[in-house]
Amino acid sequence: MTEDEPASERLYHLDGELVPAPEATVSVDDRGFRYGDGAFETLRAYGGSIFEWEAHADRLERTCEAIGLEHGLSRQELADRIEATLAANDLTDAYVRLSITRGVQPGTLAPRPEVDPTVVVYVKPLPRGGLEGESVWDGPATLQTVKVRRIPDAALPAGAKTHNYLNGILARQELHDADEALVRDLEGDVAEGATSNVFFVDDGGLHTPTTEGAVLPGITRRVVLELAADAGIPIDEGRFRPEDVRQADEVFLTNTTWVVRPVDRVDGITLGDGDERERPVTSLLARLFDERVERDHYG
Amino acid sequence: MTEDEPASERLYHLDGELVPAPEATVSVDDRGFRYGDGAFETLRAYGGSIFEWEAHADRLERTCEAIGLEHGLSRQELADRIEATLAANDLTDAYVRLSITRGVQPGTLAPRPEVDPTVVVYVKPLPRGGLEGESVWDGPATLQTVKVRRIPDAALPAGAKTHNYLNGILARQELHDADEALVRDLEGDVAEGATSNVFFVDDGGLHTPTTEGAVLPGITRRVVLELAADAGIPIDEGRFRPEDVRQADEVFLTNTTWVVRPVDRVDGITLGDGDERERPVTSLLARLFDERVERDHYG
Repeated sequence: MTEDEPASERLYHLDGELVPAPEATVSVDDRGFRYGDGAFETLRAYGGSIFEWEAHADRLERTCEAIGLEHGLSRQELADRIEATLAANDLTDAYVRLSITRGVQPGTLAPRPEVDPTVVVYVKPLPRGGLEGESVWDGPATLQTVKVRRIPDAALPAGAKTHNYLNGILARQELHDADEALVRDLEGDVAEGATSNVFFVDDGGLHTPTTEGAVLPGITRRVVLELAADAGIPIDEGRFRPEDVRQADEVFLTNTTWVVRPVDRVDGITLGDGDERERPVTSLLARLFDERVERDHYG
Repeated sequence: MTEDEPASERLYHLDGELVPAPEATVSVDDRGFRYGDGAFETLRAYGGSIFEWEAHADRLERTCEAIGLEHGLSRQELADRIEATLAANDLTDAYVRLSITRGVQPGTLAPRPEVDPTVVVYVKPLPRGGLEGESVWDGPATLQTVKVRRIPDAALPAGAKTHNYLNGILARQELHDADEALVRDLEGDVAEGATSNVFFVDDGGLHTPTTEGAVLPGITRRVVLELAADAGIPIDEGRFRPEDVRQADEVFLTNTTWVVRPVDRVDGITLGDGDERERPVTSLLARLFDERVERDHYG
């Protein structure tokens, strides 16, 4: 786990310049600070290149569209900045965050169309994990159903990944001795974790909440679904209740950092006997994912 | 209207120091920037003192409680910083924004309890307005019902005023030739404007959406309700549809900056004949409000 490695030695990329992380600052008038008025992506570099860059760039574009942010930077420019940041930090396996905010604008809440965006590339070391490396998580996760509900699409576009992240923070704050929140939508159906998508396995195959609901369409989620389909595992994107998750044979979480992270306890209920052999589908998908990383980045 | 006056000449108060506004910056790792993880208040100084400071300080406290932010600063310390900022800028009639974020923390989304908060006091000149001064708005507002809905209390506490303000930005972006959005809750009832509370008047008296719904309890809203009660105007805090607002005799908006701002058009429909004599209740309340400002701040 390298999340707490101090940033003081690293360089961030801020508005076109590489700057020491402690000196990477934005105006208190930046709309990202005042209103959370910005888009971001969490990315991962394996062997020096970004995993699923095009998919992340697509989603970033959709987020910016959803909040009406025309930042004027090409996909290639963004990729170049990320590459420059990785190179300057001598990193090949890394966590990367790319943030674009609406920058400083005079006056009112309603944004002006002419944007001088604030663009930040954050990096920190993150070893590969998976079969060939050490995992980024200490062990299987414990999940807890929380009271706070996912913001409905009618209030904030569910597909947009923005700097308005308090909903996830509130979810995490409810946790008692658990690693991730099981967040429901207003109807009580399982939506996602605070920073992850949720999957479970039972006799019928692989289940995960549909992105027709208030669910962020995770990139890792999509890749896992592709791998499962290729492996002939029945897939069911639907609507589920927390009890479906609690009664499952296997549960796992996906996100860019965790990749495929098994869950061993949901709301205090231990799944199976906690033995890895009891998680054949999770293990298979984690292995297939890692093979894909190997093929695309280290082959 | 002074909203566009350049900030370059002003001093902000940042983490205990007065700094020229262009040099007031925060780390890109500040949770206020990364997640909108902060609380704020919009305040107004009249004659050198803050209007309804205790009420604003109470609401700030409730916001911080709602997001679990223990910033460790006393109410007096916050008041002192605001006073110092006004004095340093030689301002007595001013717009003031006080922001407190969770500051920089290492690692994960889940915040740590030990907080080194970021505290910012922003100021800009804002003439008194009202009977004795020039109004801060150019004329009556036009309102437009928007598609985006208010975030329900179950997802983000409705009473909390936080840096997660994208919902209001999306509402404002929908406007065509209108000044303020009429934002409904998920049930279709009127909640509020993007930055204001909504009132309307008909034969039955004064109506405004109840704060039992997804409505921010505005300080100006509360004062107006007190003034109306003192004046013997029947008050109805309830649930209303946009058509109730469109069919009203009078409509007005309240917030700290606008105070009482009449509305002359809702969804393209002109109220009355646009003549001020047609807005007796709005005019009365605006005058009573101004008398209270006079008494408390210039008396």
